[in-house]
Amino acid sequence: MRITTLGLDADDTLWHNESIFRMTQARFRDLMADHAEPDFLDSRLAEVERRNLALYGYGVKGFTLSLIETAMDITGGQPPGRIIAEILAAGREMLNHPVETLPGVDEALAELSKHYRLVLITKGDLLHQEQKLAASGLGELFVAVEIVSEKDADTYVRIFDRHGAGAAKSAMVGNSLRSDVLPALEAGAFAAHVPYELTWAHEVADPPTDHPRFAELPSIRDVPAWVKALG
Amino acid sequence: MRITTLGLDADDTLWHNESIFRMTQARFRDLMADHAEPDFLDSRLAEVERRNLALYGYGVKGFTLSLIETAMDITGGQPPGRIIAEILAAGREMLNHPVETLPGVDEALAELSKHYRLVLITKGDLLHQEQKLAASGLGELFVAVEIVSEKDADTYVRIFDRHGAGAAKSAMVGNSLRSDVLPALEAGAFAAHVPYELTWAHEVADPPTDHPRFAELPSIRDVPAWVKALG
Repeated sequence: MRITTLGLDADDTLWHNESIFRMTQARFRDLMADHAEPDFLDSRLAEVERRNLALYGYGVKGFTLSLIETAMDITGGQPPGRIIAEILAAGREMLNHPVETLPGVDEALAELSKHYRLVLITKGDLLHQEQKLAASGLGELFVAVEIVSEKDADTYVRIFDRHGAGAAKSAMVGNSLRSDVLPALEAGAFAAHVPYELTWAHEVADPPTDHPRFAELPSIRDVPAWVKALG
Repeated sequence: MRITTLGLDADDTLWHNESIFRMTQARFRDLMADHAEPDFLDSRLAEVERRNLALYGYGVKGFTLSLIETAMDITGGQPPGRIIAEILAAGREMLNHPVETLPGVDEALAELSKHYRLVLITKGDLLHQEQKLAASGLGELFVAVEIVSEKDADTYVRIFDRHGAGAAKSAMVGNSLRSDVLPALEAGAFAAHVPYELTWAHEVADPPTDHPRFAELPSIRDVPAWVKALG
């Protein structure tokens, strides 16, 4: 057996995440309808998020702060109190949002956990990711949970050394080419891209061409057969 | 040698943290001076923080959101835009605040790292804690960094198993009786309390009495002799 450890991304690979951010963003557009056109608002928010990323990192709390900052920008620093209240409530609802595993996830992970050491590898708020994993009911299937501030090649080398026999005997599965696939390949691991219906602009990247350790899979249901075929 | 692994808390054990929160809270009092008496404001903020702790966890971003929520509460939901702008700026400054190691920390850790496996064990925002460790210049002295959402006995059992020979051969050092000392003792480790000049209300607890594995030390400078004396 060549592969011993399988890394799995969490948000938009195991459960919905981007769709929840998009719903909040749609609500923000409605809320700000008297102050800004939707496209203009979206581009200002994207700019604020990009500027704050190095300071706030990934996750709902930083996003909530960026929504407030955008509302300040757009209203000349005088947003109606109702808008701030609605943003705080939206952030809280995102943190409390029920975790819904994506179709096929439960079956695929149950099968994979029989043959490989499963490691959850995710960015985002530490506490929120732990809460989502607990709510997903999938926690018992993982031998380890690695919540990281950035997913680069070093991250994958370190994690696959710690929880397996190194990157060469490990595979990574996720919806983000930029965070899950490209750095895992760079680390020397196998990697499969399982796209989600939506991708956050920050995570967009081009797929590798003709890479011997890369696969594009339509669904997480295809992961067990892919890993098995690796040897 | 009985002790193989030494766990160290970060905030208010290795560098200033609570003092930065207190400075921001003093600034918040000034900012809200036209709207609330300082004591009333403090108690409202403490109440909001307590309510949000399970959802936001520890760290600056959650604190910033709690400041905004408190400002909303106090002003009947209509805070002047200037107040929101100042709170956002204060949160950003906290995240950018230079890291100042406490007196004696650099020398004590350099000495300890020669004899024990040092593990940083801390709560808070993942990204921000990593940034502070990098800025402290202490990163190379640690064999591992464990950023956790809660410090309970299970946390210490898991970490001391992973990075050493189990809790019985490990010691924990920190400024919080509640988070660093009591759960580490419960896990079966040795623990030393090195008080900081300030303690967040949420972290206050009574010290153990006559516990054979507990020590109260006036300074981190006393840690090397204490661990050495353990055998």
